[in-house]
Amino acid sequence: MEQVNRDRLEQLLKQFSAFGATPGNGVSRLALSQADIDARHQFHSHCEAIGLTMKVDDMGNMYAILPGKKDVPPIVMGSHLDSVLKGGRFDGTLGVLAGLEVVHTLVERKIELNHPVMVVNFTNEEGARFDPAMMSSGVLSGKFNKEEMLRSRDSEGVTFEEALKQSGFEGAECDRLTDAAAYLELHIEQGPVLDTYGEDIAVVEGVMGMVCYEITLNGESNHAGTTPISMRKDAMFASANVMMHLQRELKKMPENLVYTIGRMHVTPNIHTVIPNEVRFTLEARHADCAVIREVEKIIARLPSEVEQCVMSYRKLWDRDTVEFDTTVVNAVSDSAVALGYKTRRMYSGAGHDAQFIATYIPSAMIFVPSTKGYSHREDEYTAYEACAKGADVLLQTLVQLDKKLSNAYESEFVK
Amino acid sequence: MEQVNRDRLEQLLKQFSAFGATPGNGVSRLALSQADIDARHQFHSHCEAIGLTMKVDDMGNMYAILPGKKDVPPIVMGSHLDSVLKGGRFDGTLGVLAGLEVVHTLVERKIELNHPVMVVNFTNEEGARFDPAMMSSGVLSGKFNKEEMLRSRDSEGVTFEEALKQSGFEGAECDRLTDAAAYLELHIEQGPVLDTYGEDIAVVEGVMGMVCYEITLNGESNHAGTTPISMRKDAMFASANVMMHLQRELKKMPENLVYTIGRMHVTPNIHTVIPNEVRFTLEARHADCAVIREVEKIIARLPSEVEQCVMSYRKLWDRDTVEFDTTVVNAVSDSAVALGYKTRRMYSGAGHDAQFIATYIPSAMIFVPSTKGYSHREDEYTAYEACAKGADVLLQTLVQLDKKLSNAYESEFVK
Repeated sequence: MEQVNRDRLEQLLKQFSAFGATPGNGVSRLALSQADIDARHQFHSHCEAIGLTMKVDDMGNMYAILPGKKDVPPIVMGSHLDSVLKGGRFDGTLGVLAGLEVVHTLVERKIELNHPVMVVNFTNEEGARFDPAMMSSGVLSGKFNKEEMLRSRDSEGVTFEEALKQSGFEGAECDRLTDAAAYLELHIEQGPVLDTYGEDIAVVEGVMGMVCYEITLNGESNHAGTTPISMRKDAMFASANVMMHLQRELKKMPENLVYTIGRMHVTPNIHTVIPNEVRFTLEARHADCAVIREVEKIIARLPSEVEQCVMSYRKLWDRDTVEFDTTVVNAVSDSAVALGYKTRRMYSGAGHDAQFIATYIPSAMIFVPSTKGYSHREDEYTAYEACAKGADVLLQTLVQLDKKLSNAYESEFVK
Repeated sequence: MEQVNRDRLEQLLKQFSAFGATPGNGVSRLALSQADIDARHQFHSHCEAIGLTMKVDDMGNMYAILPGKKDVPPIVMGSHLDSVLKGGRFDGTLGVLAGLEVVHTLVERKIELNHPVMVVNFTNEEGARFDPAMMSSGVLSGKFNKEEMLRSRDSEGVTFEEALKQSGFEGAECDRLTDAAAYLELHIEQGPVLDTYGEDIAVVEGVMGMVCYEITLNGESNHAGTTPISMRKDAMFASANVMMHLQRELKKMPENLVYTIGRMHVTPNIHTVIPNEVRFTLEARHADCAVIREVEKIIARLPSEVEQCVMSYRKLWDRDTVEFDTTVVNAVSDSAVALGYKTRRMYSGAGHDAQFIATYIPSAMIFVPSTKGYSHREDEYTAYEACAKGADVLLQTLVQLDKKLSNAYESEFVK
């Protein structure tokens, strides 16, 4: 069974980790920064060197194309080359460079597929410089309005539009990714599951739905020294009480539900004053929307008064679960198993370009282990061998899908 | 039984509420600000008008003196005219103006006491402009170093020394309050107890001791969407757990113990990231140091690991209970009862100049109700009738103490 060139992939990954390298062994490669622009040029020249054609669309998304034997929509592989501030070297980058390595392997070994093969680098997936995240796949899928995105400003007031024009990577709308046979995104897991269980590959079936609520306890501020406990309306203890209640209830739910109280604001936040307001977020994610609805019921059942404080809540946002395409997901699964790699199925808890692309192109994702589950930090790490296994699955899935989807075309033709 | 002139006291209080008046019916009269300087001049001219002699010491403390029949140390009444930003009209001011009204009553009714009587206005009690609070009584009592205090800067970089010189209220060290027969401070309660129980007067037996700890839970930050609950080290839920444990344990303690978690810092405080650190303060106050030691034991018994997070704590500071002088406290109590006012004994949970003065002059305090316990806010309020009752107790206590302490001198003389 074909495998990618492990050394070449490792060299590629190491080469790209120099663009925006940080002293802490990570990268700061914010979208359309000089480091990102340098990485884009490097990506371009590698693609040209192996004979691919490059197109760039009006959001700066880069597409490298290897023609197929037939004039059919391409099979697309990719991810993003931008990073968060002090991020890791593998998040996103792996998906682009593994795509490049897979195509390089095809070219080198003269493996001709029926479908054209495309490698894509999506612009500003992280949203770390220009809000929101997954900006360009969002525009492609119609989720985001392009004009609004162009006006998004970084912390120094530069708009996305200005940065895009200055980068030299502004292309034409007609070159956008519109139709494709499949989209495959290899990515690091960004969670600890594969690493913990010593597994190689996660076949990603979709992206979990989520809800995020803000819960507020309102009491009364008073002097910490002069107000007897029985006369207090202490929003801090009331909040602790609500948090523990939520934890107890949420623990009864399916164990793969994840829930987090990540942000809290205390008013006035002075050690000698009883807090009159505590606000905190509760977000929960699960693939099954029925489970998410249960979480919402737990919140709705919270009493309106807790320890003399008024409890209120509001939903900040939610997002439905995105289900990936069964044919593509199964192709990933069959390939990983055929390669003999230890495999599990999972839903992604994190957002990815694939969740938007999946709305109009049959998609799936492949995860490889993140050591200790670290991501968005400089010590994010995935062993090169593990990256190569992911690229092997990418290659194998591409070959399988090419065959399967070609048969589908032909049987359609026969009809 | 002699009582003060209610109308005159009300007019005085209203007059002084104009100095630094805020639109919200409060006062912003930061120490040595123009509003404070204006109030000081007004105080000075009232004192002169009733024939008192004014002295000012090197910290700007003002002393108005009415001679006694004997050349003995004075009985002193007072408090402070400065306020916090957007503070109330009664906090501090009542103690100074009631002292003035008491002396005015003595003069007007030609009541001659054996002791000289002194009314004091302490500089910068609030510490709202120049840190620390109770600065000048702290210097008088040797608690604070004068040179350090002179270097204390406000938020605009002005030192206390510069502000004092500019104010025209810098006097001589030899004019400090050094020896006195007694110190009496009338103050609003700043808590809800008298108001809740419909009582007139609190006989203050001392100032509660306190401890303040910082408790820290250290876990691990990870992606809120990708990290299974079982693999988390979530410092937020661990903290909620510790807070509820502390509440359960502290509730078992004597009911007049007060405890507050007023300040909390969450890191990184992002809704999509599991917090890796939560730090919060726990402060507790009680008159009995044995109770405070029990609180410290509860903290010391906290487990070093809670929900996979490391628990640590450190003491930020403590302060011992200050016991007021039994003779002076009993004189206050006897006076309040003699006047037929509803009275209770209590310890102050808040700090006051009296706690420092008490270290070298026999002292006690008198509290009058704070509506709803509000203080350090513009809607702080004490009815004028309630203020007058406090001033009556001040007057009565002064007369009683003058008699009692004169007898003591005489019996000493007889020996």
